[in-house]
Amino acid sequence: MDLKIGVIKGDGIGPEIVTEAMKVLDKVGNVYGHTCHYEQLLLGGASIDVHGIPLTDETIEKAKACDAVLMGSIGGDAKTSPWYQLEPDKRPEAGLLKIRKALNLFANLRPAVLYDELKGACPLKEDITEGGFDMMIMRELTGGLYFGERKTVEEDGVMTAYDSLTYNENEIRRIAKRAFDVAEKRRCKVTSVDKANVLDSSRLWRKVVEDVAKEYPNVELEHMLVDNCAMQLVKDPRQFDVILTENMFGDILSDEASMVTGSIGMLASASLNETKFGLYEPSGGSAPDIAGKGIANPIATILSAAMMLRFSFDLDQEADAIEAAVEKVLKDGYRTIDIMSEGKKQIGTKEMGDRIAAYI
Amino acid sequence: MDLKIGVIKGDGIGPEIVTEAMKVLDKVGNVYGHTCHYEQLLLGGASIDVHGIPLTDETIEKAKACDAVLMGSIGGDAKTSPWYQLEPDKRPEAGLLKIRKALNLFANLRPAVLYDELKGACPLKEDITEGGFDMMIMRELTGGLYFGERKTVEEDGVMTAYDSLTYNENEIRRIAKRAFDVAEKRRCKVTSVDKANVLDSSRLWRKVVEDVAKEYPNVELEHMLVDNCAMQLVKDPRQFDVILTENMFGDILSDEASMVTGSIGMLASASLNETKFGLYEPSGGSAPDIAGKGIANPIATILSAAMMLRFSFDLDQEADAIEAAVEKVLKDGYRTIDIMSEGKKQIGTKEMGDRIAAYI
Ligand SMILES: CC(C)[C@H](C(=O)O)[C@@H](O)C(=O)O
Ligand SMILES: CC(C)[C@H](C(=O)O)[C@@H](O)C(=O)O
Repeated sequence: MDLKIGVIKGDGIGPEIVTEAMKVLDKVGNVYGHTCHYEQLLLGGASIDVHGIPLTDETIEKAKACDAVLMGSIGGDAKTSPWYQLEPDKRPEAGLLKIRKALNLFANLRPAVLYDELKGACPLKEDITEGGFDMMIMRELTGGLYFGERKTVEEDGVMTAYDSLTYNENEIRRIAKRAFDVAEKRRCKVTSVDKANVLDSSRLWRKVVEDVAKEYPNVELEHMLVDNCAMQLVKDPRQFDVILTENMFGDILSDEASMVTGSIGMLASASLNETKFGLYEPSGGSAPDIAGKGIANPIATILSAAMMLRFSFDLDQEADAIEAAVEKVLKDGYRTIDIMSEGKKQIGTKEMGDRIAAYI
Repeated sequence: MDLKIGVIKGDGIGPEIVTEAMKVLDKVGNVYGHTCHYEQLLLGGASIDVHGIPLTDETIEKAKACDAVLMGSIGGDAKTSPWYQLEPDKRPEAGLLKIRKALNLFANLRPAVLYDELKGACPLKEDITEGGFDMMIMRELTGGLYFGERKTVEEDGVMTAYDSLTYNENEIRRIAKRAFDVAEKRRCKVTSVDKANVLDSSRLWRKVVEDVAKEYPNVELEHMLVDNCAMQLVKDPRQFDVILTENMFGDILSDEASMVTGSIGMLASASLNETKFGLYEPSGGSAPDIAGKGIANPIATILSAAMMLRFSFDLDQEADAIEAAVEKVLKDGYRTIDIMSEGKKQIGTKEMGDRIAAYI
């Protein structure tokens, strides 16, 4: 099979970790008889440096011509990088928001898994996480407050800022369907998170999700208020299978959940549209403080490549092979510095990539 | 001194826990020579049962005539209680939102403290919390998304819901000043939480907070994005002194922080306006499942009464006495069921109130 993959190396540790993911993909290609064609794309700070803006139409068009996009990470140190002297809508993150919308990537899947081998890094006490946990956060990614109209105006001499939050039933239905589809292949439970005791958008959310649930009689649906969910993630993460929620709540809760695992350097993510197309990236940030040092953990990006094979190319066997290779290397005791613990063997970005590729 | 205190016993465990707080207040009155005059007020489900609506003008007027209001908890079980058959704006929680606005309670203070005696209940591993943590979350309580205009309309046959988020600089300035005032009496650090990489309201927030900070050269200010803050609360709660944030972020983060302590039954809160007036209530909910059983933990409400003495009546010594009494009873090994652990003595709501009162 020919895989046409857009590659956004991005900023900070992005180039290093993407290089390792490409190495693993190439090995998968060799073993299973596929050819990866990479198309390098610019986004974020790297795009600002070349074009003066974080996302060009050219990048959008080229991305659309690919089957999927693999991304490193976007952005720099807001305190020191010149990118943050620009107007907010010219900064690296604005490019990320814009490409999500341009490619219609409405479904963001963020797994939060406690790896047996990495229990030591989990901030929660062991009795709470015994037996592990494994949830999938489904965040709506192109609607809500992050894409609403906004303005800041002076009214009677007082500066006033406005943001707006809109959802229509179609936007809610399509992400809800995705969540139930995903839940069907997992443990058949959806926790839909909203603030229906206050917000109109949450009330519509709840109604549409209930409608969709009728089409999935084998999937259990529960509703949870966002403030309660923020508590439950800390109190008892094992209760969750699929968490379905809107854009901003998903932003906050998925980051909380990723920290609850204790190993954000292991967490992949996928952002999908209505077709098989998707953008795949690690959950963590660009970590400018350790960029170029060869110590960043490439596993989240490598697992994002596995998600890409699974969702965009239906190559389940190949995706399984990558995930199994990661587990084997962890079992062998190799760790990058972020997941290092006593008695384990610390290695760098490149060696981690090599070892995972070798197990394919 | 004559203290004119409005009392909203509320729903669920509310009446039981407020009764104990009043017991402790009366003891304080005896010892220190004050007289508490209580005015019973109806809010939430209790008001619906009598008046058909969760908040009457009479309650608002009577509350305004008091020096402060002590509250239990509002609301019932959304699945079974008839209150939740009503339209959303007739439900118990709507009364709570409305009274906050009517009394202009814009500053919500929620302490999140790890009690040395209750470390066992903390969900975080001990190395993360060694030495304890003690933060104060300052949540803006009468603006933002929870008080914006909202509507749900059909557009071209598609249901669409709108919520809106507005802040003006005056609303931001007054809560920011409060936060810096509070920080000055604590460890002189303010972490202002926003989503300034996306929202206009957050950009204005950040700008105004920076302006206010100039008036407090001895207080350190740092900005943190809300998604990062949701992570940091789990990763390293000791880093926080005062967290300053807008309404919705404060709702989510304060609940997360309260769960991180592991003992939400211990956490008080205060909601203040521009004067000395305030509404004081436990951080936890109405727990309808254990209502009437005499097992609820009254400590959060008793500590809320202490906050009331401190903020509304400037009775610091009396507030200190209550807090010291609570610590002594914990040291003696007495626990309600929610904070019970091996080797401790389990007691009920009433005995807990009696023991705390006895130490005043
Ligand atoms: C960079 C930012 C705009 C983005 C978001 O909030 O969506 C990021 O935090 C994320 O979660 O992918
Ligand atoms: C009941 C609800 C409206 C309320 C809020 O979200 O403000 C509650 O969750 C709280 O935090 O006091």
